Amino acid sequence: MKYEVILNVLGGLLRFLGAIMILPLLVAIYYGDSIYPFLIAVVITGLTGILLSARYKSSEEWNTREGFAIVALGWLSAAIFGAIPFMLDGISPINAIFESMSGFTTTGATVLLNIEAHSRSILFWRSLTQWLGGMGIIMLFIAILPKLGVAGRQLFRAEAPGPTEDKIKPRIRETAKILWLVYFSISLLEVIALLLAGMSFYDALTHTFTTMACGGFSPYGLSVAAFNSPLIEGIITLFMFISGANFALHYRTLYTDRNSLVKDDEFKFYAGVTLIATSILTFSLWKDMGETVLTSFRYAVFQVVSIMTTTGFATVDFNFWTDSAKIVLLAVMFIGGCAGSTSGGIKVVRFLLLLKYSQRALFKSIHPRAVQPIKFNKKTVPDDVMQAIVSFVVIYFMIFAVSTGLLSLMGMDIVSSITASIATLGNIGPGFNLVGPMANFDVVPFVGKILLIGNMWVGRLEVFTVIVMLTPEFWKR
Amino acid sequence: MKYEVILNVLGGLLRFLGAIMILPLLVAIYYGDSIYPFLIAVVITGLTGILLSARYKSSEEWNTREGFAIVALGWLSAAIFGAIPFMLDGISPINAIFESMSGFTTTGATVLLNIEAHSRSILFWRSLTQWLGGMGIIMLFIAILPKLGVAGRQLFRAEAPGPTEDKIKPRIRETAKILWLVYFSISLLEVIALLLAGMSFYDALTHTFTTMACGGFSPYGLSVAAFNSPLIEGIITLFMFISGANFALHYRTLYTDRNSLVKDDEFKFYAGVTLIATSILTFSLWKDMGETVLTSFRYAVFQVVSIMTTTGFATVDFNFWTDSAKIVLLAVMFIGGCAGSTSGGIKVVRFLLLLKYSQRALFKSIHPRAVQPIKFNKKTVPDDVMQAIVSFVVIYFMIFAVSTGLLSLMGMDIVSSITASIATLGNIGPGFNLVGPMANFDVVPFVGKILLIGNMWVGRLEVFTVIVMLTPEFWKR
Repeated sequence: MKYEVILNVLGGLLRFLGAIMILPLLVAIYYGDSIYPFLIAVVITGLTGILLSARYKSSEEWNTREGFAIVALGWLSAAIFGAIPFMLDGISPINAIFESMSGFTTTGATVLLNIEAHSRSILFWRSLTQWLGGMGIIMLFIAILPKLGVAGRQLFRAEAPGPTEDKIKPRIRETAKILWLVYFSISLLEVIALLLAGMSFYDALTHTFTTMACGGFSPYGLSVAAFNSPLIEGIITLFMFISGANFALHYRTLYTDRNSLVKDDEFKFYAGVTLIATSILTFSLWKDMGETVLTSFRYAVFQVVSIMTTTGFATVDFNFWTDSAKIVLLAVMFIGGCAGSTSGGIKVVRFLLLLKYSQRALFKSIHPRAVQPIKFNKKTVPDDVMQAIVSFVVIYFMIFAVSTGLLSLMGMDIVSSITASIATLGNIGPGFNLVGPMANFDVVPFVGKILLIGNMWVGRLEVFTVIVMLTPEFWKR
Repeated sequence: MKYEVILNVLGGLLRFLGAIMILPLLVAIYYGDSIYPFLIAVVITGLTGILLSARYKSSEEWNTREGFAIVALGWLSAAIFGAIPFMLDGISPINAIFESMSGFTTTGATVLLNIEAHSRSILFWRSLTQWLGGMGIIMLFIAILPKLGVAGRQLFRAEAPGPTEDKIKPRIRETAKILWLVYFSISLLEVIALLLAGMSFYDALTHTFTTMACGGFSPYGLSVAAFNSPLIEGIITLFMFISGANFALHYRTLYTDRNSLVKDDEFKFYAGVTLIATSILTFSLWKDMGETVLTSFRYAVFQVVSIMTTTGFATVDFNFWTDSAKIVLLAVMFIGGCAGSTSGGIKVVRFLLLLKYSQRALFKSIHPRAVQPIKFNKKTVPDDVMQAIVSFVVIYFMIFAVSTGLLSLMGMDIVSSITASIATLGNIGPGFNLVGPMANFDVVPFVGKILLIGNMWVGRLEVFTVIVMLTPEFWKR
């Protein structure tokens, strides 16, 4: 393990973060808010970054282990340094780190009791952390991890954008630039659409930040319900749906092949599940809640897309829905969005491949000697990819079960424990009961908050990246 | 598909079932109950069996598909014909089939509103169905399925009793005889123990039937709480624990190697989980429910063993426990007992191997080229066995999720839907809330009962056996 490389890269990351914090500082000046939270944060973060970079100079190559450590510790550092403005705003350290981790992991779970009581610059920073986190996650999964040869990532390697169908651009920097452009362009489109729908520039910007990242922070306690506008809900639904799909495919759709999305097995499945879940939920709301079909559909489509893409916006307090309506949301919580998107969760492609895997097992139990490869986008899925997927899902469910158990033992009820666990592990945001969409994670006890911070971190980095760091041999030099 | 073979074997099975029904008939005569429910059942079942055997004569060999069909349809026929006495006792057809399926699958979920209102002979038959089901399941998994070369069963093939370590007795009949002897001997021991503890012969017999099968039917509405005797609870706990372990290992422990159980990886894990779950539950009951440590331990050990072995007896209405206590029971519901036992659930060995599988994946993500076989009892687990285990767990959770979703859509609350699904799919018996240990599955709507009957059937036969029958190519001649 080359510690110098890791600390060197972390230094660079913190310098970048310090520079970015100048943005909310400008916002604070514009709105006349206190500038100290950001001024001090810029100085501390920037200086730490500069010191690290100066102290640890290393141009050695990373290998897989350094890559894991950089990614995992990078996210952790961003969450900790990103919490400084919140702390200086008077939020307790544990809550500040919770909120910051929830931001950079694009989770959207909040511990702020009265959101509107905080200054516009603080809420701007809160939304911006999600946009940065979202960009980071796209880079990570499309540009960085495939380079590191991470098990299971081979599958998505071919999905990375590039001029030819099956080759990734050889240099990370180039891929990253392309993705940045796509992410930025779609964000710009959403800002314009929201402005045209009548939002203020501040609202359009902050909601775009959190939509594009499948994050879900809103500067309003009522979330998107604060606007009560079907048009705004429609726009946000559309952009959540886009952000929950593979950005490498967005690139291709824009630059090489217009049919890239509709030809993709994962996207088709993603669209199918969204459609089915929306239909069931519409029916359930219409039947049990006495709403009209149209209103039911309006709530249903927004909430299904919001939860399935792990954004977590709400247009209604679904805590008051019947259990039959809630169960639809619970189901899509476990699925999540597409690989290569900003969404969290287990991911559609893993579900799809597990389904095919089981189908094959059924077939094999009748024809034991038959050879039937598993296909994805007309290509055979290699065995080691399937193994990585299976292990991922097993470890994911284990963490989910342990987290649910621990929260229950801390005195939370079963439904709150279950949904708080999956809402943080899947980077969704709100759950049910105590942690519902209009409620608040502040009710979780101190130790529970640490657990959930861990869930967000582990879940965002797709488990392995963090878990391997817990093994002693990871740290051998 | 050779239909003649299937119908021929089913004929034999029904003749056997008809003959067995003479037992409750004798009990009815002894207690002066109405003899018609059993007289008519004996005639209908026996005659159907004789007619089938006479009409379809076939001495052809089975292959895998016929084997599956015989097993799946065999359990279904037993449940339907076994329901005749209940129907003639005035129970509605759907409830009668539910109760009978719950018996033959050794589930123990009940729809009887007032258990003590039914005659002693009816309750005797109800318990006996579980003992028969338990015997059937041991035969199936240790003697029959390995012969059929069912994927994943190869693992347990070596576990079948026989004079040499690694060879199964070549003929099913011989293995079956040995298992029968072990099952019968342990049952006899339990009857004697319960008699010595002060139970009546009737109570000792019926509770032995349902303990040995990990079933859980009791002739009392209060279940084992009706006796309020720590000694009886201790005896039942011990025999539940024994019945949740591999009967092939019991055979070996008795006849070849005294250390067979303690050397077995699965048994060690099973004992470990029981110990840990009991400790956590004891602590939780002591802390939150204000019980003494001793009382907490008494409730905890009984309930953990009862639920983990999927028996489902209760000594307390755990519906009134805190959610932190309930979550411990929910966790062990998913694990279940050991392979080759009468218990249901996912099974300890599958959990153990999935854990090792994930551990290897973590290792591989640091050392991508390392070859690290998965070991069980010091032998390498073949890849196709691991594949079968993974597929099993995936399909199991899918059925669980769909069942939970459907029950919710029928208006049941989330916790009731979750636990009713796992309690039937895992052949446990009671769940929480509406379907708690002192409550009753009669509250489930008609369509929901059909669903749960399906769950019990599919769960008992470890999913594949039933699911493959739903594919069209299964039925090709």
